[in-house]
Amino acid sequence: MAQQPPAPQQIGVGMLGLGTVGTEVARRLISEWHLLTARAGGTTPVLRAVAVRDTSKQRDLDLKNVRVSDNAASVVDDPDIAIVVEVMGGTEPATGLIDRALAAGKTVVTANKAVIAAEGPRLWEAAAAHHAGLWFEAAVGGGLPVVSLLRDSLRGDRISSIDAIINGTTNVILTRMREEGVTLAAALADAQARGFAEADAGADVDGWDAAQKLVIMSRLAFNLALTVDDADVVGIGGLDRIDLGYTGQLGYAVKLVAHAERRGRDAVQLRVRPTAVPASHPLFGVNGANNAVLLASDLAQTVSLGGVGAGGESTASAVVSDIVNAVVRRGSQPEPTAARTALILDTEEYDVAGYVRLRITDTEEARELVLQALADRGVPVDDAVDKPPVDGPAPQLLVLTGIAPRAVHDRALETLDSLAVVREVACALDRISP
Amino acid sequence: MAQQPPAPQQIGVGMLGLGTVGTEVARRLISEWHLLTARAGGTTPVLRAVAVRDTSKQRDLDLKNVRVSDNAASVVDDPDIAIVVEVMGGTEPATGLIDRALAAGKTVVTANKAVIAAEGPRLWEAAAAHHAGLWFEAAVGGGLPVVSLLRDSLRGDRISSIDAIINGTTNVILTRMREEGVTLAAALADAQARGFAEADAGADVDGWDAAQKLVIMSRLAFNLALTVDDADVVGIGGLDRIDLGYTGQLGYAVKLVAHAERRGRDAVQLRVRPTAVPASHPLFGVNGANNAVLLASDLAQTVSLGGVGAGGESTASAVVSDIVNAVVRRGSQPEPTAARTALILDTEEYDVAGYVRLRITDTEEARELVLQALADRGVPVDDAVDKPPVDGPAPQLLVLTGIAPRAVHDRALETLDSLAVVREVACALDRISP
Repeated sequence: MAQQPPAPQQIGVGMLGLGTVGTEVARRLISEWHLLTARAGGTTPVLRAVAVRDTSKQRDLDLKNVRVSDNAASVVDDPDIAIVVEVMGGTEPATGLIDRALAAGKTVVTANKAVIAAEGPRLWEAAAAHHAGLWFEAAVGGGLPVVSLLRDSLRGDRISSIDAIINGTTNVILTRMREEGVTLAAALADAQARGFAEADAGADVDGWDAAQKLVIMSRLAFNLALTVDDADVVGIGGLDRIDLGYTGQLGYAVKLVAHAERRGRDAVQLRVRPTAVPASHPLFGVNGANNAVLLASDLAQTVSLGGVGAGGESTASAVVSDIVNAVVRRGSQPEPTAARTALILDTEEYDVAGYVRLRITDTEEARELVLQALADRGVPVDDAVDKPPVDGPAPQLLVLTGIAPRAVHDRALETLDSLAVVREVACALDRISP
Repeated sequence: MAQQPPAPQQIGVGMLGLGTVGTEVARRLISEWHLLTARAGGTTPVLRAVAVRDTSKQRDLDLKNVRVSDNAASVVDDPDIAIVVEVMGGTEPATGLIDRALAAGKTVVTANKAVIAAEGPRLWEAAAAHHAGLWFEAAVGGGLPVVSLLRDSLRGDRISSIDAIINGTTNVILTRMREEGVTLAAALADAQARGFAEADAGADVDGWDAAQKLVIMSRLAFNLALTVDDADVVGIGGLDRIDLGYTGQLGYAVKLVAHAERRGRDAVQLRVRPTAVPASHPLFGVNGANNAVLLASDLAQTVSLGGVGAGGESTASAVVSDIVNAVVRRGSQPEPTAARTALILDTEEYDVAGYVRLRITDTEEARELVLQALADRGVPVDDAVDKPPVDGPAPQLLVLTGIAPRAVHDRALETLDSLAVVREVACALDRISP
């Protein structure tokens, strides 16, 4: 199957990195060249070279017609290579190599969300200036064609909001905490053991991975200049399994929800927060390694896209799709329209509903004083549920707060914290009301 | 807002038809030309002419810079028009006008599923022969970019199956029958009154509209030559509200599910049937006018796409997106690869599970004889539930049959029908087992 295709029309592909994703991409390019040639309208994308750290490593791939090098720049510079596939990860040397390929007028296909989140607009301009190409479907949502949906479909729509579960690692952890009642540490260790989380899962747990993807999506959706610093980001690190259990009993699943919302033309709010999602919501059933993106727009109204958001095969699906599309559409990528300056709206001004768990004193009036304090501070109460003590003698009170600005919520929580009848505000989460 | 754009680069658009969809498309082209110009990389698609049946009709549109004609051919032939948008519906004169535009090397954007289902491959070849373009995102699934997902994304994947709720009218009817307990006739009349069903909803109720869309999707997914005659189609016309109630009690929602499945390279089975969908299935929650498409493929694994499948605005979203994409990608549409001949697999050979409602005699052994007959004929029984009589004295028995070939099911139902203890096989539906 690895024989060179007989087609006279070939286009050389060089790959930087041969890890989980790269191996799947290489396998498809080598063994399915006939399929890809048909899809590319008769031109064959031929894998000519790969750059790896260790050229002596044994690999489960037939690379006999592929040059294997430990010099990534030589792969980029190879005149027989027109498409450079960057699947090495990390910001350097990846960014420099992408720059080098674009400067040479080559087409770059990358799965690197960190690079695109940090440097995407600059790289896109560089691609346009050098008549090169930049494709990054694999940077967001693995096998979900999110970039294509935002960039190529809905061309006539004004998108107003995005809601997404876009980090598979945290979704695996939260699903397991809810379903099995285990701690975050145990769920993380289990996800690492099963290959759903990397050894260093810090950026996943902290919400920054989701924030990078949210920024990439929001730029495409709103055509605004945005960086991860524009996002209000809270990770899942502080979550206690007890709250996944309690919210579950109340009909909610806690998810790390990435949300972007436009007001008017240039004002936007971006946030990533653990959020209690009600059973009636389309994101409720998105479990484990699945990802989902919901868009609201003026003509199409709502569009949802779901699928497997991580892993070698699903990410390779996006990379290979980009390679074929780059062949089919060479020379026709639209000029990037200059992104407008965004007005970042203060997250404090946004309406939210909440889930709050309090440890209170064992007195008759404690419950009443808490609910009175919330009412006094302008926070509606949708429900209040008593729970027995855990880890100590204090009874617990769960409050589902109704919709009010986050600033109002925050001030009310400070007030609760200062009440003599409240021992601790043990948890406060955003909640989507059903 | 309707002033002519100042951009030097314009591309003329002519529209055939100005109904619900056409009006929304015209409104967007006229009032949002600035947005569309940016999305199209600097070229403005300008609406120059529309063909309508009655030129004297008052319309809620500012058409002062648009030629309004009752001669559709003159719009197609207009040398100032490069993109012909066909939103008139019906097979003729639409097909002839599309042919005429393609023969002149123009780009055609159509929302016409009947034309694409019947003549798509021939028209696509004509477009290639004349260096013209053919775009039909709006022919399937309204605001859901299904065609783009199948044609432009997943370029490196082998798609193995499609499951879809792709007819909004029947989904509105079935949702209402289940939720309100009304008859099919009442639900249809209500859908017509609320604009969710056309006056002649025959093709919707009979399943042919869904079959047309399934054929269009299957051609793109599998690259096989297919027609609606290749599909096994059962509509919802025979459904009794009582079965929507009973299946609901058992945790199922009856949906008109369109299913395509490939075995090996060229063998395929297409079917459209009312199907009891369990609560755990992703199609269960797709209600009302919503559509959803689930794909299974080898790399991406599963991809789901959902949204509003019908109506003027959501269909206009797809038409306008096609217009802008046609401008951006002019000259780069891939050559159609010659579709392979399909081997249509006999629906009888496919495994299905079922829901069966029987009216039986009021005797002690009736239930036992029914279950014994199913076992003797090789049909597993997952569950059997007694129900009191309706419309007569006969008690009822609901049987959830387990997975077996359809032929085995059918023979077993014939046997049941011949049993003395069975008065009537009142309903037999496909069922997806949870």
